[in-house]
Amino acid sequence: MPANTAEPGKGFKHRLALKSSLARETMSEFLGTFIMIVLGCGCVAQAVLSRGIFGSIITINVGFAMSAAMAIYATGGVSGGHINPAVSFAMCLFGRMTWYKLPFYVGAQFLGAFAGSAVLFGIYYDRLMAFAGGKLLITGENATAHIFATYPAPYLSLANVFADQVMSTMFLLMMVFAIFDSRNLGVPKGLEPVVIGLLIIVLSSSLGLNSGCAMNPARDLSPRLFTALAGWGFDVFRAGHHFWWIPVVGPLVGGALGGLVYVLLIEIHHPEPEQNFSAEQPEDKQEKYELSVIM
Amino acid sequence: MPANTAEPGKGFKHRLALKSSLARETMSEFLGTFIMIVLGCGCVAQAVLSRGIFGSIITINVGFAMSAAMAIYATGGVSGGHINPAVSFAMCLFGRMTWYKLPFYVGAQFLGAFAGSAVLFGIYYDRLMAFAGGKLLITGENATAHIFATYPAPYLSLANVFADQVMSTMFLLMMVFAIFDSRNLGVPKGLEPVVIGLLIIVLSSSLGLNSGCAMNPARDLSPRLFTALAGWGFDVFRAGHHFWWIPVVGPLVGGALGGLVYVLLIEIHHPEPEQNFSAEQPEDKQEKYELSVIM
Amino acid sequence: MPANTAEPGKGFKHRLALKSSLARETMSEFLGTFIMIVLGCGCVAQAVLSRGIFGSIITINVGFAMSAAMAIYATGGVSGGHINPAVSFAMCLFGRMTWYKLPFYVGAQFLGAFAGSAVLFGIYYDRLMAFAGGKLLITGENATAHIFATYPAPYLSLANVFADQVMSTMFLLMMVFAIFDSRNLGVPKGLEPVVIGLLIIVLSSSLGLNSGCAMNPARDLSPRLFTALAGWGFDVFRAGHHFWWIPVVGPLVGGALGGLVYVLLIEIHHPEPEQNFSAEQPEDKQEKYELSVIM
Amino acid sequence: MPANTAEPGKGFKHRLALKSSLARETMSEFLGTFIMIVLGCGCVAQAVLSRGIFGSIITINVGFAMSAAMAIYATGGVSGGHINPAVSFAMCLFGRMTWYKLPFYVGAQFLGAFAGSAVLFGIYYDRLMAFAGGKLLITGENATAHIFATYPAPYLSLANVFADQVMSTMFLLMMVFAIFDSRNLGVPKGLEPVVIGLLIIVLSSSLGLNSGCAMNPARDLSPRLFTALAGWGFDVFRAGHHFWWIPVVGPLVGGALGGLVYVLLIEIHHPEPEQNFSAEQPEDKQEKYELSVIM
Repeated sequence: MPANTAEPGKGFKHRLALKSSLARETMSEFLGTFIMIVLGCGCVAQAVLSRGIFGSIITINVGFAMSAAMAIYATGGVSGGHINPAVSFAMCLFGRMTWYKLPFYVGAQFLGAFAGSAVLFGIYYDRLMAFAGGKLLITGENATAHIFATYPAPYLSLANVFADQVMSTMFLLMMVFAIFDSRNLGVPKGLEPVVIGLLIIVLSSSLGLNSGCAMNPARDLSPRLFTALAGWGFDVFRAGHHFWWIPVVGPLVGGALGGLVYVLLIEIHHPEPEQNFSAEQPEDKQEKYELSVIM
Repeated sequence: MPANTAEPGKGFKHRLALKSSLARETMSEFLGTFIMIVLGCGCVAQAVLSRGIFGSIITINVGFAMSAAMAIYATGGVSGGHINPAVSFAMCLFGRMTWYKLPFYVGAQFLGAFAGSAVLFGIYYDRLMAFAGGKLLITGENATAHIFATYPAPYLSLANVFADQVMSTMFLLMMVFAIFDSRNLGVPKGLEPVVIGLLIIVLSSSLGLNSGCAMNPARDLSPRLFTALAGWGFDVFRAGHHFWWIPVVGPLVGGALGGLVYVLLIEIHHPEPEQNFSAEQPEDKQEKYELSVIM
Repeated sequence: MPANTAEPGKGFKHRLALKSSLARETMSEFLGTFIMIVLGCGCVAQAVLSRGIFGSIITINVGFAMSAAMAIYATGGVSGGHINPAVSFAMCLFGRMTWYKLPFYVGAQFLGAFAGSAVLFGIYYDRLMAFAGGKLLITGENATAHIFATYPAPYLSLANVFADQVMSTMFLLMMVFAIFDSRNLGVPKGLEPVVIGLLIIVLSSSLGLNSGCAMNPARDLSPRLFTALAGWGFDVFRAGHHFWWIPVVGPLVGGALGGLVYVLLIEIHHPEPEQNFSAEQPEDKQEKYELSVIM
Repeated sequence: MPANTAEPGKGFKHRLALKSSLARETMSEFLGTFIMIVLGCGCVAQAVLSRGIFGSIITINVGFAMSAAMAIYATGGVSGGHINPAVSFAMCLFGRMTWYKLPFYVGAQFLGAFAGSAVLFGIYYDRLMAFAGGKLLITGENATAHIFATYPAPYLSLANVFADQVMSTMFLLMMVFAIFDSRNLGVPKGLEPVVIGLLIIVLSSSLGLNSGCAMNPARDLSPRLFTALAGWGFDVFRAGHHFWWIPVVGPLVGGALGGLVYVLLIEIHHPEPEQNFSAEQPEDKQEKYELSVIM
């Protein structure tokens, strides 16, 4: 096809285009987590900074869920749209992604969430400054730190909040496995992000009361680090009896557990596919991994 | 295929996998009802325990409906995702499930709802204790029993609440029959759970005022039994002039009625399919039952 | 197929099944309008009778819209799911339904709406009696007549409310024509009811302030007649300077206008289909009408 | 086919039908923007004029988003349903529409938005007059100008609101490019308008606090001009330190940026299609433009 080389746009594209699929996927996970944090935490910001006039628990729950859906639409065809280390970890654990990709995915997710926090801080800088007379507070009615990271309710034991994060991420991953299990009911191709959005609406409406339903180490730790550096101070790590590590470790445990429950109770019991059908699916491991990236 | 026996994962899978489809379906119904109760009643819990700050009638109606949708996604391809004895009963009554499966389905549904209540109680244990000074109350503004089971409004006669449960479940089953009637307008394959979710939003927004729109014996009786044992006491069965049996019997009557109305007014009047088309659908009863499991 | 005659269920079915497609369609329109009124007006009832605690403008707008969607799912494959005389009238006017069917459709819609009002009245009878000390009022803060029919805001001229009903039904029909225009963007088969539901959410959220956005003669006149007979008295027809005829006549005018605008601005400008494509669509009028019934 | 010429309706159609595809597309963009303004700004009107009783931030955000979805359904198959100069500009910039069409698209969008404002003003004329004792105000609690155009929060610098409009439109176009990128996850054909609606819900719930999230020069400038002429006076252009040009220029910059980010981070990295697959897509520029009109 000599026409290709003659076309200038294509030559430009060729120089910039990433040859490595891992580099592509890393950039995609960065972008996805960035989108989710700007728009998702943006919903919290709008509700908090308007003191409930231009936002409420409904716009937060619907908006955060649909910002995750949008992030998956933007990246799902490239990297699977994990946008969550707990998802990537569970995918590796159950053989749906190769382990060597995990650090790249997780690193991109943490960086994307950090960059997203910074952009959101910029967009609402004037408003944040006006909100509490120029102070950036972690507690009290003028607190703004919970725009970025989650904080536990005061009466809770660490054991209870840990169980809470494990349980909510368990349901998240159990349902993600179900949504992408083509031998179950099946979500129509291209609507998985919307159904995952509906799932997040349910989870944040039902299991969000104890500690805000983070269910995602990158969504919580990176914005928390950002707030520590941007002026709220390192008390964001001390709040709630050093609560910060719970939305990091809890979701990893819960995600693994959720995948396990789904596989043990549903997936392994699916009847064997017909012999001639299985012939069409060669058991070539490498190809399986490539497919599994699309979750 | 000697490669299969060599693969360790598959051997492991073979040992655990349930050979009996009935066992698979029973486990699936258990899981589905479990999911619906944890997430659905969880939405009520979040609204009640935050005294309306982190939840409202909107998050409850949308959240409960979508938790049912999620439960159907998790189980629909295996057991049909009934998650409701009234649905299973109507399916048997209209020849879409064999009667011998009914006790297994219903038993699994009751057990799943009980287990779900216990898990939800655990997740919000600290909060429940803090809510009314350590007391678990059935009535008054600090009541928490209605997180789990439904209670009637005080002015209602038993006849009115019975009619209420019959009517709402009638509409539920009438629409479930319509949604799965491929000769009617038809919902795209894989979106039935979302449309059922929208249906439950409508029903709980329109017919939920008299007694909470349970429409499901397992969803109501198992959590009520759990609260009786967990500290609210057996007054949960005495409340509302022994109201407890109404969301058990009413939905069974209403479900049967709903199926009957749909079949009599719509289904039997569909024109006969073409002869060559009917040839592709052999009237092999056994196969019909297998298909009907997918509702 | 001698097996058919031997099967008792099929014989029973044969005796009951309607041979005439018009009879089938009439029954279907009755059922659809019945469903829409019980569930749609039910949402208004729940919000009004709980004085805003178990319902609000959001549950009403979403619930009424989705009850229309459910009614279309229940009937769309049989009669097209018009459930609105303004829709049936516009379909006849633009050659998508034969005129002789119109009185049957419209009659069924009025009867269905009347029956739905009666059932809703029954379901909430105890509550209605308790609401205003046993009185059924049309105006004031204890009014309940607007659960069933719409009433105009007090400051409005009749010209303004008439224009209001014409405009809102114009947008309704314009969009219904667009949604079923397969040469435009196109809604996936089987999701038209959900998109129509979203449309009704938009219309009732934007054009509902003047007079409640009835957009449907059957939805408004039949429930109004029911309230006149059921105890609110014939003042329901005198209220708002004899407003009652406006949601009857306005939607018929607006629906015709909406179809006209869509056809003139969009439909007639679609490029001619390819010759070989048109060959697959024989211009047999009768068949066209049969198809158009599915809207 | 001699039957065609004999059919009177077809002859009528032939006389009226636009032969030029550009004329068709111009009319389509006019209609789309008209629909979005009447129904979208109508949601703001209902909330403002009822002082929050029949509308709130939720009905505004959902209603405006879904009125855009409806406008796209009405016009997407003809002109691509841009209904936004920032979208048309970005489409030209990235070679998805020919530049010569741009003035026609943009002109139609501005005219449609102006006409929509006038119709909405007519529908709510009586109510607007009653709202503030016959006065049409721009500021204060009886202000009504923000029904039509957006105004910035008082504490904001012009730099911040400009950045705000750039950022929000950047996310809008980035996601529009993703939604129509068939080599990414892909939205099912015919559901793109609904997903764009969900996107607008997210954007207005997260980035709407600074200056109302116009993201569209036609949606903001035309209604503002209408209010200036209709009685609010030319102070609508002076308000917020002559804020009016920011929702005009900002979205053009942001839209270009959003397309660029998506193309650079995702689109150019898609692996090359297979040779035999590319053979089915001839690189005939003209055909590409025709297709791209459907976005």
